[in-house]
Amino acid sequence: MNVTVAFVGLGAMGYPMAAHLSRRFETLVWNRTHEKALQHAAEYGSRAVTSVAAAAEADILFTCLPTSAEVAALAGDVISGAGNGLVWVDCTSGDPEVTRELAVRLAGQGIEFVDAPLSGGTAGAEAGKLSVMFGGAESTLEEVRPALEAFATKIVRVGEVGSGHAVKAINNALLAVNLWAAGEGLAALAALGVDVGAALEVINASSGRSNVTENLIPQRVLTRTFPATFKLALLAKDAGLAMDVVRGARASAPVIAMTESLIRAAVNEIGPDEDHTAALKLIERWSKTEIR
Amino acid sequence: MNVTVAFVGLGAMGYPMAAHLSRRFETLVWNRTHEKALQHAAEYGSRAVTSVAAAAEADILFTCLPTSAEVAALAGDVISGAGNGLVWVDCTSGDPEVTRELAVRLAGQGIEFVDAPLSGGTAGAEAGKLSVMFGGAESTLEEVRPALEAFATKIVRVGEVGSGHAVKAINNALLAVNLWAAGEGLAALAALGVDVGAALEVINASSGRSNVTENLIPQRVLTRTFPATFKLALLAKDAGLAMDVVRGARASAPVIAMTESLIRAAVNEIGPDEDHTAALKLIERWSKTEIR
Amino acid sequence: MNVTVAFVGLGAMGYPMAAHLSRRFETLVWNRTHEKALQHAAEYGSRAVTSVAAAAEADILFTCLPTSAEVAALAGDVISGAGNGLVWVDCTSGDPEVTRELAVRLAGQGIEFVDAPLSGGTAGAEAGKLSVMFGGAESTLEEVRPALEAFATKIVRVGEVGSGHAVKAINNALLAVNLWAAGEGLAALAALGVDVGAALEVINASSGRSNVTENLIPQRVLTRTFPATFKLALLAKDAGLAMDVVRGARASAPVIAMTESLIRAAVNEIGPDEDHTAALKLIERWSKTEIR
Amino acid sequence: MNVTVAFVGLGAMGYPMAAHLSRRFETLVWNRTHEKALQHAAEYGSRAVTSVAAAAEADILFTCLPTSAEVAALAGDVISGAGNGLVWVDCTSGDPEVTRELAVRLAGQGIEFVDAPLSGGTAGAEAGKLSVMFGGAESTLEEVRPALEAFATKIVRVGEVGSGHAVKAINNALLAVNLWAAGEGLAALAALGVDVGAALEVINASSGRSNVTENLIPQRVLTRTFPATFKLALLAKDAGLAMDVVRGARASAPVIAMTESLIRAAVNEIGPDEDHTAALKLIERWSKTEIR
Repeated sequence: MNVTVAFVGLGAMGYPMAAHLSRRFETLVWNRTHEKALQHAAEYGSRAVTSVAAAAEADILFTCLPTSAEVAALAGDVISGAGNGLVWVDCTSGDPEVTRELAVRLAGQGIEFVDAPLSGGTAGAEAGKLSVMFGGAESTLEEVRPALEAFATKIVRVGEVGSGHAVKAINNALLAVNLWAAGEGLAALAALGVDVGAALEVINASSGRSNVTENLIPQRVLTRTFPATFKLALLAKDAGLAMDVVRGARASAPVIAMTESLIRAAVNEIGPDEDHTAALKLIERWSKTEIR
Repeated sequence: MNVTVAFVGLGAMGYPMAAHLSRRFETLVWNRTHEKALQHAAEYGSRAVTSVAAAAEADILFTCLPTSAEVAALAGDVISGAGNGLVWVDCTSGDPEVTRELAVRLAGQGIEFVDAPLSGGTAGAEAGKLSVMFGGAESTLEEVRPALEAFATKIVRVGEVGSGHAVKAINNALLAVNLWAAGEGLAALAALGVDVGAALEVINASSGRSNVTENLIPQRVLTRTFPATFKLALLAKDAGLAMDVVRGARASAPVIAMTESLIRAAVNEIGPDEDHTAALKLIERWSKTEIR
Repeated sequence: MNVTVAFVGLGAMGYPMAAHLSRRFETLVWNRTHEKALQHAAEYGSRAVTSVAAAAEADILFTCLPTSAEVAALAGDVISGAGNGLVWVDCTSGDPEVTRELAVRLAGQGIEFVDAPLSGGTAGAEAGKLSVMFGGAESTLEEVRPALEAFATKIVRVGEVGSGHAVKAINNALLAVNLWAAGEGLAALAALGVDVGAALEVINASSGRSNVTENLIPQRVLTRTFPATFKLALLAKDAGLAMDVVRGARASAPVIAMTESLIRAAVNEIGPDEDHTAALKLIERWSKTEIR
Repeated sequence: MNVTVAFVGLGAMGYPMAAHLSRRFETLVWNRTHEKALQHAAEYGSRAVTSVAAAAEADILFTCLPTSAEVAALAGDVISGAGNGLVWVDCTSGDPEVTRELAVRLAGQGIEFVDAPLSGGTAGAEAGKLSVMFGGAESTLEEVRPALEAFATKIVRVGEVGSGHAVKAINNALLAVNLWAAGEGLAALAALGVDVGAALEVINASSGRSNVTENLIPQRVLTRTFPATFKLALLAKDAGLAMDVVRGARASAPVIAMTESLIRAAVNEIGPDEDHTAALKLIERWSKTEIR
C-alpha cells in the first residue's frame, strides 16, 4: 500500500519536515502563500496543492502552524476534503484544550485528530532528528510512526490526545523558569565580580546545571549574540499555555505562574521578536550589571 | 619538600576526602568526636591530633563543616597553632560574607584563608572525583592544587576569596528552583493523567531538561524512595545564602527569593531531615496528585 | 410608566436583592428550584414565574449566578422570551470575556447586556447597601439606575460592558494578595513572640493597613472563627478571572499570578468550602506557628 | 523630679519630634552637622551639645537615624557618657537582630535599650501625632511614656525589645506588597480602557481596599506627582528587614520575598531617591500602559 501524506504550514519547521517526508512518501504540500508550496515542490518533488481540502485527501495530514487558533480554523476545509479514515497529526505547539475539543468534533466526522508537537528546533527539523511528544491512541501512533520517523529520531507517546501539547507547554515553561533563575543567579554573581564563565563551568559539573546553563547562556548570552531562533513572544505564549494546563488540572504552580508574568514583562520591555534568551537583558537592568 | 596537610571535620564528605589526602600526603586529622579521628588514622594511616591548634601546624589546613559559623569559631585555635604561611582551605558550603571577613582577619595573622566548596556529593567524595569552586588568589590555587587533586577532578577558580561560596550558593539555588518548577509542572501533568515517565523522557530530549529532570526525579521521586543524601534543611540553608549573595550584590532575584520561601515551607511541613527531593511531596499535596 | 423587573438566581445575594426590588417594582422571580421562588413571592409579594423566558418579558432582567457559564447558558431562553428593548443586568462575579461575547450576540437580538457585579456581601444585600461596578453605556446606566438604587447605595460606572467584571476580579485579587501577605507577615511576628493583636492595632494606624488588617483578620482569624461567608473556592475563581484580565491585557502581574496559585494550594489543602480567611491556616503550617 | 531628655538625629522626622519634646522637657540635641543642632536650639529652646556622650547624660536618650548601623556605632560614646539608669529609646526603622544584640550589650553597662519606631511620616512628626511601636519591658514603657506622648498620640507595646522594629518592618513590607499588587491590577485595567479613577472609587468601597488604594494611588499616582516623601530606597531597606524577620523566625513568606526583589528592581531602574509610589512606573513599562 502506498501511503500519501500532506503537510500544511511550510514555515521554518514545516519546510524541512515536509522535505524529509517527500523522500519517503508521496507528499502534498499547502501553504498560505502558494509560492512557498511551489518552491517546495520544485526543490523536493512534493506536489503543491491549492486548497486545504485537496491536502485532506491524503492518508495522513500534518499541520505545523503558529497556534491552535490557526489549526482550528482549518477544520471546515479539512472535513470537506477528507477521504475515509484520515489521520490528522498536529505538530503545532498548541493548546491542549482546543485540541481535545477539536478531536471530539472531528471524530464525529470520521477523522482522527492527534497531537505531536516537536522539540529540536529548526536545526533538528533540518537534520530530521526531531523529538515528538505524541498524544493519541497507541494504535494511531503505530499507524503514523513510519511517517513520523521521516523527521524524528525520538517518538514518545505521553498520553491521550492533548497530552503532547500539555507536555510541550510544560517543557517550555521549565525552559522559561530555568532560564530566568539562571539569569538572576548569574547577574548577582556578575555584580559581585565573580567570573561568570568559570562559574558556569563549575555549575555545569554540579547539581544546578540545565540545558540553559550548559548551552543557551554560554552560546547566546556570554557571546552577547542572542540569535533569534526562538522568539520571546513564543516563549510567553507557551508559558501561558502551561498555566492553562495547570489551571485545567486545578493544580498549584506559583513559580511557573510568576515566571510567566515576568516573561510577559520581558516581551513588553525587550521586544517580542528578540530571542528568548534576551529576557536576561531585563534582569541585567534590574541588577545593574551585565552577565559576561 | 614534603607538604603536610590537615583535615578538620570528618563528616560524610570530609572522611573520604581526608582518606584520599592520606594516600598522597602526611595528613593530620581532627574531629569534634575524637573516636572518628582515631578510626580514620587506623583505617587510612592519617595521624589523629587532639586539638585544632595542632592541626594548624600543617602547611595546608582543610575544613569541611556544616556552616561558616563553625568555621569562624575555630579561628582562635587556628591562629594559636598556625606555623609560618599556613593556607587554610575551607570546603564548607559557607557564607561568602563571613568568609571575606574571616580572610581579612586571618591575613592580619599571616594566614591565607581561601574557600573551596565542592560539588559531587558523598559519591564524588568517595570516588575522589569532586568539583571544586575556588575563591582566592591564583598563586594560592597553584600552591594547593596538588592537594585538591587528591580528591577533585575539576578545579575552577571563580574569583577572589568568598567567590567559591557565592557560586556554590547560587548553584544550589538553581537546583532548588529547577526542582520546584519541575515538580509543579509534572504534578499538573500527572493530575491530567499524562504518563509522567514518558513526559520526562521527552523533556530530557528537549529544551526544559536539567539535572533535576534527568537524574533526581527519575531516580528519587518516580521510585518514591527519596533517599536522604542531601537534606531539605541544607537546601534551605543554601538558598538562604544565595539570597544573601543577591542582596549583597543589590541585585533582584524574585524567582530565587520566592523559591527560598517555598523550600522553607517544605522544611517545616515535610521535615528538615528528608531528602531535598521530598519537597515535591508538598507540591503534590497542593495539586492533589502524585508524581509517578 | 410602570417598570417591571425580573430576578433570576435567588441565592444568598439574590434573594434579599429581589426583596428590595419587590418593594419598589413589579418583580418577577425565577429560581432553578421553584420552591425558592414561591417562598420569595409569599414573603415579599414578588411573582414567581416558571421559566426564564417568562422572566425575560420584564423591562429589566437581573441575573446573579455562580459563574458566567450559568449566565451564558440562559441566553437562548432569554432571547426566546424577551420583549422589545430588554436590558439584562448581570450581577454575577463574572468573566469579562464571556460577558463581552454575550453582549455582542445579544445586541444582535435587540437585547442590551450589561454587567453590574456587587460588593458588600450578604450583609450589604440584606441592608440594601451594596456597591455596584457598572460596565455598559452611560445611557443604559441611567435607564436602570432606579432599579439598582433599590439595593445599592454606591453605583459607579467603570467602563464599557465587561469592565464591571474586570474591576470586581481585580478587587478580589487585591483582597487575595493583601490577605496572603498579611498572613505571612503576622505569622513571622507570631513565631517571634510578638503580640499579634497589638501589632495589628499599630499597623492599622500605619501605611500597611488594609481591609484585611482592619476587619478580616481581627474578626475572623484572631478569633479563630473563620465564618464561611465567602468561600475559598470563590476567591480562587475570582483570582483566576483576574489573571484572565491580566493576560487579556497582555500585562504583567507576577505578584497576583503567584498568589492565585497559592490560593489554589489552599483550596486543595484547607478545603473549597472554608472561609477565604482560612487560607492563613496554610501559612501557619508553613511557618509552624499560629496567628493569635 | 525634672526629667531631662536628649535627641540624636535631627532629620526630617527627628527635628520636629525634638521640637515637641522641647516644649515639655529640658532637651539636649545633637546632630552630625552641629549647625542643625544650633538652629534647633535657637528655634525651640533646646540645648545643643557637642558630643553624643554629653547627650547620654540625660535621663532618656532618643535616637532617630537612617539604619541600625548608625545607631550601633554610637554605643561606645553613649556608654562613656551615660549616667545611672539611662533609658535609650531608638526610633529608627531599625533591624530587630542588631537591636536585640545591642540591648544585651548595653544592659551589661546598666543602660536599658528599647525600640520605638514610628509611623505617621513627617506630617505626623510635625503635628505631634505619630504612632509608636514599642518593643521593651512594660515598666520601661511607663517610664518613658510621658516623653513619647510629646510627639505621639498612639503608643502600642508589641513585645520585648526588637519587636517594635519587627512590626515596623512587616508593616512596610505590607505597604510594599499592597502597593505592588494594586499597581499590577490597575495597570491591567488601564490597558483594557477601564476608568481607573472610577475603579478605585468602587474598590475603596469593597474588600480589596487598602491605604494604598485609598490614599497613595489617588494622591500620588493618578496625579502623576510622585512626591518623594518616602523614598524607594528606604522601602527596599525595610522590605529587606522584613525578610530578615521572616528568616529569623524560620517562617515562609513567598509573596513578601518576591516583592522585596521586585522593589529592588524598581530601585535600580527608577532610582533610589524617587518616591516609593514611583515603583509603579516600572509596572507600567512591563504592561505598556499608564495608570491614570
